Amino acid sequence: MFSGAQISLYPMTDDFVGVIMSALGALDPYRERLRIETDDVSTLLVGPPEVLFPAMRDLFSAAARTGVHCTLSAAISRGCPGEPDDAICASSRFEGSITPLAQRRAKALSAVANAANLDVPSVAQFSLYVMGQGSHMDEIYGCIDFLKQSGTFEKSKHFVTKLRGDSGALFATLEQAFCSFGPPEGHVTIDLTVSANSPSAR
Amino acid sequence: MFSGAQISLYPMTDDFVGVIMSALGALDPYRERLRIETDDVSTLLVGPPEVLFPAMRDLFSAAARTGVHCTLSAAISRGCPGEPDDAICASSRFEGSITPLAQRRAKALSAVANAANLDVPSVAQFSLYVMGQGSHMDEIYGCIDFLKQSGTFEKSKHFVTKLRGDSGALFATLEQAFCSFGPPEGHVTIDLTVSANSPSAR
Repeated sequence: MFSGAQISLYPMTDDFVGVIMSALGALDPYRERLRIETDDVSTLLVGPPEVLFPAMRDLFSAAARTGVHCTLSAAISRGCPGEPDDAICASSRFEGSITPLAQRRAKALSAVANAANLDVPSVAQFSLYVMGQGSHMDEIYGCIDFLKQSGTFEKSKHFVTKLRGDSGALFATLEQAFCSFGPPEGHVTIDLTVSANSPSAR
Repeated sequence: MFSGAQISLYPMTDDFVGVIMSALGALDPYRERLRIETDDVSTLLVGPPEVLFPAMRDLFSAAARTGVHCTLSAAISRGCPGEPDDAICASSRFEGSITPLAQRRAKALSAVANAANLDVPSVAQFSLYVMGQGSHMDEIYGCIDFLKQSGTFEKSKHFVTKLRGDSGALFATLEQAFCSFGPPEGHVTIDLTVSANSPSAR
């Protein structure tokens, strides 16, 4: 199943190029397990969720540690019927048939509870889309139940859910939301914004 | 049908607050026809597409005219079954039953051809999601046909389509993509990034 993301990093400073260039080093441990392509709007990361989410987490956290207000924006996708499969995306995460919602929720909560602490206070705002089936809202509501118990939930807003916490817990929550809801072979996407150091939040 | 967007404006400058505050004046002509709420991550705009897209266009264009590299990020939605209806969203755009794809495409192309010119060269990158039906990819492919003939199409990338042109034509293209594909009463969303003045593009 093809999976990956188009991501953009926005440091709100005159030296945005410098912040981006220095943060890119955080992707080095992941480069062999991701296909990476950059243009003037975004950087494509192709790879399995268990590599993709830690890579986004570390890139964002490196930029946020400069103290500059910065955001990461990402369009994350798995199982899009229009995309060819790619060996680099191989993941055991989606094997087998779908298990009951309660079981998936419990596993997801355990993964968030065990997330690494990166000491980067952040907020995340995202929408989860489950395509190609009539019951897509059941999976969405199941995911919202998980989010509310995750310890990172801040509030529901129109169209999106807002999380707050350490970047480690936030990206663990996002990875679980992405992988644990919707059919294993289904087309699932996330529209994500992560933000740190906003003057509005002080 | 409830419709609106969560939008964020990212000027890549030390004076990002100043650029955002001055650009907000561009929303003034639309304020009576939109519900607007802001927090530390995004601004909610609730209203019909024919107000929403011009408002986003003018906000983005005002920021881009400063010459600063800036991007607008938006999660745009209509018909979400989890949202209550709101009188401010009333629009004649979605009345009647769905017409054949070819007919919708022709109307959409005509709207883009007649778009205002704002003289703000920009790029846009977006994903269109049509939820809650098995044939969602037919509507996506119909939309891609429209985009390829729109005059704003730059290329397809993984997960997203990239447009290039004047901000007037870009937001007209986006409004048509949002309104003309998927069932009139369906749940349709766009994950959008618009960018201007990127040093990478020079």
